[in-house]
Amino acid sequence: MIYTAQIKVMPLKDLLDPQGKAVLGGLKNLGVDAVSDVRVGKHIDLQVEASSKEEAISIASDAAKKLLANPVMEVFEVTI
Amino acid sequence: MIYTAQIKVMPLKDLLDPQGKAVLGGLKNLGVDAVSDVRVGKHIDLQVEASSKEEAISIASDAAKKLLANPVMEVFEVTI
Repeated sequence: MIYTAQIKVMPLKDLLDPQGKAVLGGLKNLGVDAVSDVRVGKHIDLQVEASSKEEAISIASDAAKKLLANPVMEVFEVTI
Repeated sequence: MIYTAQIKVMPLKDLLDPQGKAVLGGLKNLGVDAVSDVRVGKHIDLQVEASSKEEAISIASDAAKKLLANPVMEVFEVTI
């Protein structure tokens, strides 16, 4: 069966996120003042062939660990 | 009150996603063969000061329209 796994990769909370800071500056310039903090990460959709939801989660986590997320700077979360 | 708005920005379904194709190739090279398609987008977390959930959603959508998503190539989704 084909499952759609969603992987969210975000910069670690303790690290500075320059892209987020740039977006925050841009929003202020555009007059969107209600936003106080921005963090920018990646969202990846995978189509995974697996026999169960658990197997799909395990394949997606494996993909994230091997290629998609850098554990030194990022944290990832898998949902099906 | 401070709400955390999550914005998911993905390339439109009908468009080619070269970054996704590159990730798919990388996964095959690494031996992750169960994955048949990959699409890569952005995930943005906003801290929004608003009086209600609806207002927070509206501010986040406004931010996405003005700066974060390109409607020609991308589609976005806001959740609180």
